[in-house]
Amino acid sequence: MREDAWIDRIRRWTAARAGAGLVAGIGDDCAVLRPAAGRDLLVTTDLMLEGVHLRRDLLSAQQAGAKAAARGLSDIAAMGGDARFLFLSLAVPAWADRRWVRAFFSGLTEMASRHGVRIAGGDLTRAEKLAADVVVLGDAPRGKALRRDGARAGDVIYVSGALGRAAAAGFRDVPEPRLELGRKLRGRATACIDLSDGLALDLHRVCKASGTCAELDGVLPTVPEATLDQALFGGEDYELLCTLPAGVRPPQGLERIGVMTGGRAKGEIRFAGRRLEPRGWDPFRQG
Amino acid sequence: MREDAWIDRIRRWTAARAGAGLVAGIGDDCAVLRPAAGRDLLVTTDLMLEGVHLRRDLLSAQQAGAKAAARGLSDIAAMGGDARFLFLSLAVPAWADRRWVRAFFSGLTEMASRHGVRIAGGDLTRAEKLAADVVVLGDAPRGKALRRDGARAGDVIYVSGALGRAAAAGFRDVPEPRLELGRKLRGRATACIDLSDGLALDLHRVCKASGTCAELDGVLPTVPEATLDQALFGGEDYELLCTLPAGVRPPQGLERIGVMTGGRAKGEIRFAGRRLEPRGWDPFRQG
Repeated sequence: MREDAWIDRIRRWTAARAGAGLVAGIGDDCAVLRPAAGRDLLVTTDLMLEGVHLRRDLLSAQQAGAKAAARGLSDIAAMGGDARFLFLSLAVPAWADRRWVRAFFSGLTEMASRHGVRIAGGDLTRAEKLAADVVVLGDAPRGKALRRDGARAGDVIYVSGALGRAAAAGFRDVPEPRLELGRKLRGRATACIDLSDGLALDLHRVCKASGTCAELDGVLPTVPEATLDQALFGGEDYELLCTLPAGVRPPQGLERIGVMTGGRAKGEIRFAGRRLEPRGWDPFRQG
Repeated sequence: MREDAWIDRIRRWTAARAGAGLVAGIGDDCAVLRPAAGRDLLVTTDLMLEGVHLRRDLLSAQQAGAKAAARGLSDIAAMGGDARFLFLSLAVPAWADRRWVRAFFSGLTEMASRHGVRIAGGDLTRAEKLAADVVVLGDAPRGKALRRDGARAGDVIYVSGALGRAAAAGFRDVPEPRLELGRKLRGRATACIDLSDGLALDLHRVCKASGTCAELDGVLPTVPEATLDQALFGGEDYELLCTLPAGVRPPQGLERIGVMTGGRAKGEIRFAGRRLEPRGWDPFRQG
């Protein structure tokens, strides 16, 4: 099948019709979008590679597509944004037949449309191994996007759910992006991040960006089957971690895990009185 | 070197400071952009893979970076847009040391900034082979972006330069995106595309989208060293092909190559009286 025939099929699978902000989708040199007035645009890109982020023995085609979309949507959630459009650059290997590719798009499209997101374009090519780069565009009211760098000493640290789930499940599950919760945090949270690489590393990043340290309570919301190591360093949970000024009531669904502190060694995290190493998922330190 | 250390370096190499539409660049879950009022947003993604679109024996690191940027910028040119922001998802293989990666970013950043484009974000990971997905965001006055589907029978077909250059050079050169010319075509051209996959295939795409056929004059602007086959089917020239209504004077730099016609077999191209096969660069038909 030729490239143009694939693209015709993908257009049908994703049902990417024009309308409501999408002037022209798949099929031209660029997609044409009409941004809503008074809002900032959010852009995230996430590369998923066979053998690095995707193991065929762990995920079905449908799950792989859903996960590719969910990772990008989670970044929009972490900014308190509304997700709008998704673009997929896909390299199809020889082992992926039409049925596999169709199931991948089915998982991707289902995850996207459940969150009101339309597939607006992308790129398609061949490769030895599967590569999927997902770009998600979202928006937020002007100046209201949540950042990593706004936490202050004294702010309380929260997470949106039990940790260690992905690691305990052997990374076989598809995360659910916390878009609704992210929107509720707009105007309340001082900082926010999604836990893609593990609590220790991602909280360290918030502390470094904000110029703070963190003191964890020593008790974490953890799924029953996870070890403490998996909860702290496992990654891929895609829960939100955020900070709120002391005294601000958190929206439902958040659990307190500690507090931001001052201190000289910016980025240092203490857990149960001991210094926590800022390690987690890092493709440059694997295998 | 850890992921975060790489990202710190990349931030320095690309000098992606905030300002003029860029509220927050590299370093958060998303980039935050402030789109200009009254303009449509253009989005294009281009995946470049080692062994498919990139051969290390043909291009230096700097050239590879420049070419990755140029391919995306060329898509914005084809829409008559102004290019604004570039995002790069990069998978770094073991053979690419710090020096190679730095030279790649140097080529990418130089090409981008020469066209007023800022590096606003991306993703970074490890892989066995190099993969680079370039996303370019641009804009155009509302409703003025050039499309593929507006050509009508009787329109004159033009190209922006001599064809076959890339193929004759063994695909060793870095194309120059025709952004200035693209902008001049706004409000004048009825359709436009960039010649990434070769004249025959890309013109066929314009004809299919517009519901026309094409009659080429039989004489093409060709670089002296290229064969006719390379000019027709070679690809990667990244010149613009556009159509203007008969009687509309083309901007400087365009050469007439034929005329759009009616006819039943939409997409059919005739060259020197014979039917031209719509073939060219297609990753699904290579090797």
